[in-house]
Amino acid sequence: MPNHSASDRLGRIFHAIADPTRRAIVERLVRGPAAVKALAEPLEMSLPGVMQHLQVLEDAGVIVTEKVGRVRSCRIEPAALREAEGWLGRQRTERERQLDQLDDYLKES
Amino acid sequence: MPNHSASDRLGRIFHAIADPTRRAIVERLVRGPAAVKALAEPLEMSLPGVMQHLQVLEDAGVIVTEKVGRVRSCRIEPAALREAEGWLGRQRTERERQLDQLDDYLKES
Repeated sequence: MPNHSASDRLGRIFHAIADPTRRAIVERLVRGPAAVKALAEPLEMSLPGVMQHLQVLEDAGVIVTEKVGRVRSCRIEPAALREAEGWLGRQRTERERQLDQLDDYLKES
Repeated sequence: MPNHSASDRLGRIFHAIADPTRRAIVERLVRGPAAVKALAEPLEMSLPGVMQHLQVLEDAGVIVTEKVGRVRSCRIEPAALREAEGWLGRQRTERERQLDQLDDYLKES
């Protein structure tokens, strides 16, 4: 993962998974690593098109690609998705905390 | 929220929170509703610039804005963030399930 600030990194992750093709790739890779060619097959897209999507996912740190011999293989890098889930979880927790405070206030008054 | 397909809606939500200014607005609104003017203050941005960001958040269903008299007020719409968190959670669960299966396979062999 390139050395970006935490906020910028989070932006790249959310941008990467904002695209339905890239989310389909993630949904495939959480089931296990796959070769680029195997990823491209169900996507009805040119190989260069798929490569571009993989590049966005790799730049965001969501996946890692590795070339072994003539085959480029991809796998998920779980830390990035965990970071995105963590930010969303913190927003939910904060909101629930605020609602609890409001609840306490209404009970007291 | 406009009537989009689930996948498109998820894309709009992730796109909306991919921007650091929009995430700052969400972080503020999970603490409670706020007027547009109050939201704009800490952002060091023109009011039209802030309004554009609010529009993206509203189109994605992440926030709701309401005009009461001369004041436009914003509040979080928790369902959208929950949907995004849900998708990320499903990817994590699927990955853990796959790792458990691999673990079982390795123990058996």
